[in-house]
Amino acid sequence: MHDEEAAPGRVTLADVAKEAGVSMPTVSKVLNGRPDVSRSTRARVERLLEANGYRRRPRTTAGPPLIELVFHELDSTWAIELIRGVESVARENQATVVLTRSGTRHRPAPDWLEGVLRRRPLGVVLVFSTLPADVRSRLRSAAIPFVVIDPAGDPDPDVPSVGSANWAGGLAATRHLTQLRHERIAIITGPEDMLCSLARLDGYRSALAMAGLETDPRLIRFGDFQVRGGFEHAMDLLDGPDRPTAVFAGSDLQALGVLEAARLKGLRVPRDLSVVGYDDVQLAQWSSPPLTTVHQPLRHMAQEAARMLFRPDDPGTGAQRIELATHLVTRQSTAEPGGG
Amino acid sequence: MHDEEAAPGRVTLADVAKEAGVSMPTVSKVLNGRPDVSRSTRARVERLLEANGYRRRPRTTAGPPLIELVFHELDSTWAIELIRGVESVARENQATVVLTRSGTRHRPAPDWLEGVLRRRPLGVVLVFSTLPADVRSRLRSAAIPFVVIDPAGDPDPDVPSVGSANWAGGLAATRHLTQLRHERIAIITGPEDMLCSLARLDGYRSALAMAGLETDPRLIRFGDFQVRGGFEHAMDLLDGPDRPTAVFAGSDLQALGVLEAARLKGLRVPRDLSVVGYDDVQLAQWSSPPLTTVHQPLRHMAQEAARMLFRPDDPGTGAQRIELATHLVTRQSTAEPGGG
Repeated sequence: MHDEEAAPGRVTLADVAKEAGVSMPTVSKVLNGRPDVSRSTRARVERLLEANGYRRRPRTTAGPPLIELVFHELDSTWAIELIRGVESVARENQATVVLTRSGTRHRPAPDWLEGVLRRRPLGVVLVFSTLPADVRSRLRSAAIPFVVIDPAGDPDPDVPSVGSANWAGGLAATRHLTQLRHERIAIITGPEDMLCSLARLDGYRSALAMAGLETDPRLIRFGDFQVRGGFEHAMDLLDGPDRPTAVFAGSDLQALGVLEAARLKGLRVPRDLSVVGYDDVQLAQWSSPPLTTVHQPLRHMAQEAARMLFRPDDPGTGAQRIELATHLVTRQSTAEPGGG
Repeated sequence: MHDEEAAPGRVTLADVAKEAGVSMPTVSKVLNGRPDVSRSTRARVERLLEANGYRRRPRTTAGPPLIELVFHELDSTWAIELIRGVESVARENQATVVLTRSGTRHRPAPDWLEGVLRRRPLGVVLVFSTLPADVRSRLRSAAIPFVVIDPAGDPDPDVPSVGSANWAGGLAATRHLTQLRHERIAIITGPEDMLCSLARLDGYRSALAMAGLETDPRLIRFGDFQVRGGFEHAMDLLDGPDRPTAVFAGSDLQALGVLEAARLKGLRVPRDLSVVGYDDVQLAQWSSPPLTTVHQPLRHMAQEAARMLFRPDDPGTGAQRIELATHLVTRQSTAEPGGG
């Protein structure tokens, strides 16, 4: 087991045990993140450790130096960019990447925590929209630093996280279309329960307002960020005479679905329909036509997240939140209405 | 350090050391794959261990159980399928995946070997076209089983490997086109120095011969398996009056390049041009139109490779080679000439 000692001149674990009214092994269990300690005891011991300025030693390097990257799903477009980012920082630090797939969008599975305590990585990068308090507390107890890559844009103030500028991305995508003089612009944003979908939608609304255009509620759709969702909403949006001349598709995958719907409707992109994606994953360059899209710096986000593991906390300032900029990449899927 | 002992009733390490005329620590170094042993001593000790029927003990589970997956590049379309396959087998065996990117297509970087000996995984799955003898020998000495996923189709008889049926894939792709009554069928295969490219090309030639068609050398191109290569060859192939009515694109990425070339030439797929991919990675379903392609079971290949790590060697039968079947998946990018 990982052995913890106080730095010289500081409070000892024996002092903490005494003050908390528990045994030394119990304090040790808290420090090692073991589950067999009651929540109230853990909280009391943690408080005393913090109040006494007890600092955990940096991890000993007995085992191989690992950085753990945890996904709830390994999808091909996003995951590989994040893996590349974390891998490059691991390499800089002579570490290797452990990859685990676990749980749901909201939390890793319970057995993951036992595994990570056995593996004792230098730190953990989690790709989750939320991270429950008990998971955070046990990682902290075990002195395993963690950062959340937060695609949903819903950071918990208590969790160090990296995100990107969703509102600004939605604004940039839509302004590009209004500047091309589109007036009927549809949006297929993401699921209604994700803040990033709402932020992109608000950016869209603001861009329309800036161009003096009304928002038409019939042109606003909530998708699933997948090809299928983009396809189905586009088949519906493109049906009928009052169809939009441009679609801001909310993700590159949804944009691919819009391209396929346009093909089936006999519409040429961009001459008959302009399409803007979001994410700028590799396939955005490979689609036909190549997609105009909002670049979300996934690899860079993963690098920042992994680097945060190596930066010591600054006590008192709270958890760090980094939000990286997004920007529009103009390719061949957009043009003036009737142009291209 | 990893401790090795003989199974009860078998030869001891002391016996081997004595017979080899070396010290016990030297035998131990050979077993642990350490580099500070001369090649001739290592070979002598290895021979004696084998001749005496010495069996390494299964790895002790002191460290976290890891399966190491090694790539020379992390490309988004292939890598994630292989990761998913290995991850699912790791999970079945209560292990986690360590991911490393190292070296070139022909060998991992020298520092990788030191790292893997420190990490002591349950086994290693390598995605390389070749694996040098010294790397194989040191992994064997350290009792770390390994399997090569062999995309190039060029297995070393001494290395356990998993591949897929490239010739049959090339045949199936081309027969599909001849059965649709295409007569001018181009192929953009992969690089000329990869056996898989040649096997697919031979399958193409055989399918043409079976249909009573001549091969036209002007319709045969060697690409790079990337979008760019497909695009550039297609721009050239589609130039002029005697253009092919169908292209077997050799990879899904090259097929995307062909689609984009067709778009720029004003050709509709499949009405004016049929396109067949190879691999059936996820984006083959997402392209517009969705690609008819040869399914190469990447995830399944990775699973088989990872499972081979857990199967004991059968001494005397040589290294195992598994070749999985490929099959054609028909989607919307192919039709009779002028049809669709």
